[in-house]
Amino acid sequence: MIDSIWTNAEKKIARRVFDTAVEREFSHLISEFKSKAASTTDTETLWDIRDWLNKRQSEIDGEFDYRYSQLIFVFANLIRTRKINIDDLAGISEQKLAEILFLTER
Amino acid sequence: MIDSIWTNAEKKIARRVFDTAVEREFSHLISEFKSKAASTTDTETLWDIRDWLNKRQSEIDGEFDYRYSQLIFVFANLIRTRKINIDDLAGISEQKLAEILFLTER
Repeated sequence: MIDSIWTNAEKKIARRVFDTAVEREFSHLISEFKSKAASTTDTETLWDIRDWLNKRQSEIDGEFDYRYSQLIFVFANLIRTRKINIDDLAGISEQKLAEILFLTER
Repeated sequence: MIDSIWTNAEKKIARRVFDTAVEREFSHLISEFKSKAASTTDTETLWDIRDWLNKRQSEIDGEFDYRYSQLIFVFANLIRTRKINIDDLAGISEQKLAEILFLTER
């Protein structure tokens, strides 16, 4: 049973880790976008970039879901995709950390 | 009554004028896109650019409709928006030119 009750102290840690990961994701997205845009020479590429942006927005919306009921899954996924480390979450309960680690191995 | 019967000679002229206008439109679009992209620093701007691309695609699809039943209207609109000149269409029938000019004034 996933522990979705977060104390205030845990919420602060979660928020910081989450926000940092979102910022990093957006920063990569913008760099990648600018690089793609700079090398655009035809409209086919242009519409491909537009479609890619739609896809990325949908992926990011799914990946970064800050609901306390989802955070354990979100952090497990972010660890699995190497976007955060388990150490970043130091300070949250042992049970939550164990749940997250368990999910990263599935 | 709009004349939507195009002779082969007229079709050649129409196609050339149309294709040149489309190419110019796409060239402007790509330049504008690259300029917008280069100055992107946040995701709000990124999604605005994506929305702008969607809007521009829809506008361009409506504006450049190469159906012989629509060409008189399409050319009238392109003249009204100064994307082509009536002289570009030299060689098509007097009736068509008159219809186009009539529509540009409406």
